[in-house]
Amino acid sequence: MQDILSDEALDQIFRQARTYRAWLDKPVTDETLRQIYDLMKWGPTSANTCPARIVFVRSREGKERLKPALAPGNVEKTMTAPATAIVAYDLLFYEKLPKLSPHNPKMRDLYAGNPQLVESTAKRNSSLQGAYLIIAARALGLDCGPMSGFDNAKLDEEFFGAGKECAGCDQEFFPEGHVRSNFLCNLGYGDPGKLHPRAPRLEFEEACDLR
Amino acid sequence: MQDILSDEALDQIFRQARTYRAWLDKPVTDETLRQIYDLMKWGPTSANTCPARIVFVRSREGKERLKPALAPGNVEKTMTAPATAIVAYDLLFYEKLPKLSPHNPKMRDLYAGNPQLVESTAKRNSSLQGAYLIIAARALGLDCGPMSGFDNAKLDEEFFGAGKECAGCDQEFFPEGHVRSNFLCNLGYGDPGKLHPRAPRLEFEEACDLR
Repeated sequence: MQDILSDEALDQIFRQARTYRAWLDKPVTDETLRQIYDLMKWGPTSANTCPARIVFVRSREGKERLKPALAPGNVEKTMTAPATAIVAYDLLFYEKLPKLSPHNPKMRDLYAGNPQLVESTAKRNSSLQGAYLIIAARALGLDCGPMSGFDNAKLDEEFFGAGKECAGCDQEFFPEGHVRSNFLCNLGYGDPGKLHPRAPRLEFEEACDLR
Repeated sequence: MQDILSDEALDQIFRQARTYRAWLDKPVTDETLRQIYDLMKWGPTSANTCPARIVFVRSREGKERLKPALAPGNVEKTMTAPATAIVAYDLLFYEKLPKLSPHNPKMRDLYAGNPQLVESTAKRNSSLQGAYLIIAARALGLDCGPMSGFDNAKLDEEFFGAGKECAGCDQEFFPEGHVRSNFLCNLGYGDPGKLHPRAPRLEFEEACDLR
């Protein structure tokens, strides 16, 4: 049986954590990005499929490639963020299952024959993994700014070869590359002076039911 | 600037946390379910839409209603779990936006006129909120067993009135009720003696890219 995390820890990952739009001038290092991944990777996914793929964009060149896909309201906060994670999913995630689920050798073929199951599994589980990324970053002392306001098709064309031929891909189902963006998450150390008042949440009775 | 959580806390929510299939004989109280919600509700969602709706099933009667929708491999662990959360989403989530995003009065109409945006927003963000539920439960000392192996349509018919008329709903777009299941998550205190060896994860280089 485990303890309850300290109030300070619960505040940091949930109760006092905020979505930031303005950033302190402090970089996010390679080492920190690896630490985020080394936590988030342990979060559970369906049959351990782990479909999320993450591009951490920090360079000026990378940010300029991202910019044309962003909704106008997301440009400044993203261009000024120390790092922006593109949380994406691989539609060929099942090719990793011989490694990820070695005890269950039939799983690969189950997914390979069912593009609809592949898509719903990839979307649901890369979203779960994106949430693990947010919590992992906060647990390491960073702040987050997640966003879905961008042109997925434009971003996928720029970063994931959508619309181009994909060497080694299954040409029948995935002629246009096999990684797709899900959402974006700015990462850095937020400027608390630029926060708006916090928006309310639903009461337990509005969102939950006990049966 | 915030500290890094203790190694014990990081182990509890990520590194040592496991998906459980067998449960100790210890109930999950109303108070604990409310504590889980009071943490998870703070996790970020698109425009603070908070589309997740959670049914916590604990009674024998509730479990029997759930049972016919479960994949055979998920029956025993679910019937024996102290609680099972149905993580669902409300396709009419935007009707709560006057409360949730009072500073942004046009958001309700933006969603109301775009059923495709409603569906993608509801699915992505209820998945994020489901991940927050998993981490919140672990942070409070519970163990989780998330699952997507069940018949969503059958569960929705039993719990959310799918296929029945919905008084007060927008009959044009949602003639069959407006709440849909996303995934299930068993909750309780896991029996570590029944765990399998842990499955591997992808290396940083297999899942991430630095740009």
